[in-house]
Amino acid sequence: MSGQISKRAVVLASGGLDSTVAAAVARQDGYELYLLTIAYGQRHAVEIERAKQVAIALETRQHVVLDIDLRAIGGSALTGDLPVPKDRDVSERDRDIPATYVPGRNLIFLSLAAAYAEVLGASAIYFGANVVDYSGYPDCRPEFIKAVEATLQVGTKAGMTGTRFEIRAPLLRMTKAEIIRLGLGLQVPFHLTHSCYDPAESVACGRCDSCLIRRQGFAEVGVVDPVPYAVS
Amino acid sequence: MSGQISKRAVVLASGGLDSTVAAAVARQDGYELYLLTIAYGQRHAVEIERAKQVAIALETRQHVVLDIDLRAIGGSALTGDLPVPKDRDVSERDRDIPATYVPGRNLIFLSLAAAYAEVLGASAIYFGANVVDYSGYPDCRPEFIKAVEATLQVGTKAGMTGTRFEIRAPLLRMTKAEIIRLGLGLQVPFHLTHSCYDPAESVACGRCDSCLIRRQGFAEVGVVDPVPYAVS
Repeated sequence: MSGQISKRAVVLASGGLDSTVAAAVARQDGYELYLLTIAYGQRHAVEIERAKQVAIALETRQHVVLDIDLRAIGGSALTGDLPVPKDRDVSERDRDIPATYVPGRNLIFLSLAAAYAEVLGASAIYFGANVVDYSGYPDCRPEFIKAVEATLQVGTKAGMTGTRFEIRAPLLRMTKAEIIRLGLGLQVPFHLTHSCYDPAESVACGRCDSCLIRRQGFAEVGVVDPVPYAVS
Repeated sequence: MSGQISKRAVVLASGGLDSTVAAAVARQDGYELYLLTIAYGQRHAVEIERAKQVAIALETRQHVVLDIDLRAIGGSALTGDLPVPKDRDVSERDRDIPATYVPGRNLIFLSLAAAYAEVLGASAIYFGANVVDYSGYPDCRPEFIKAVEATLQVGTKAGMTGTRFEIRAPLLRMTKAEIIRLGLGLQVPFHLTHSCYDPAESVACGRCDSCLIRRQGFAEVGVVDPVPYAVS
């Protein structure tokens, strides 16, 4: 870690594994961390609590939790409109854009992160997008990220006056096992992170896509996942 | 107006003059109207009430009011952090990006509108952006709108599977007088619209940039503005 920390980065922090590793990478890159958590009426509200604990553990400079009730718009399993798929194998997960896709979510989140960055005078935005395990999400793809950067460049006061916005997705092409290895090296508090799409009383189900991918990742690395699951 | 109305359009409706005329244009273009109003913790909350009245007057199919408290991010006169400028002449208004600029606002709003459109199966999004009277706002410029369209194309399920999103800003290059003339022809309920940045008890101040531009527009058209002002 660099001795002098003065640059600011906004990190989209969901309380999940990937975004927590992304935050640790931003810290490693020498940034002061400004975490932004979007409470969007998701089924797994436990994430918000975990995001707060992660923010403390990572010695974040500021943590903003922004409420926005996307249920008013609807259209996803993550906002309660559709059932969360369970026990799917890799081929099923890869076939379609999953029901857990939230229309416009990452664009909404990155827009909010950019607004926050502009207020802070920050140019770097970190987020934990990944194309390997979530190939079906259109708003995790590199071409999407490039398009958002271009939009920020022309559509913000900071962009018009010389700031070059960078949306950094350091995990974009990593497998879950690689992300976990990276996180282990950065002392990421994995025990605080939450990945399940459908927890019961804060306990991960162990069977949704997100749980399955996480558990397989830890198994590949050969490390025990410190999070408990309802189904072993 | 076309006889058969079946196409759906999302309209970003603030309760202001421009967005109400934009909604009337969408109706004229043959669309069923789905109004989206973002309650973003703005100083002028009276707009939300006016948006609801406008939605009824325009026989909107659905009106979603989405709460998002951008004050958590801060950085604008419209969210209460900076004073609203008063009594500025045109040269002053043109000189800078105004304090009423809300970082990332239109990108946030268009992202939400796109999410709503995707859920509805709509491809057209109307909004009342204008580059003539608001030359200082980076997120009202045509290049910004094009960049957002490109982003939606690559970053949404609908865009990936064939929907061609169109962000329509029919007022983009019109003067306020031209917008008012257009609205008069479309029977826009101007008496319900609200433009003031700094109203006191729902009464427009008459002195902020928005009031000054609106009043001059009505004066040029030679029609009485049906809205009362605190200062004549």
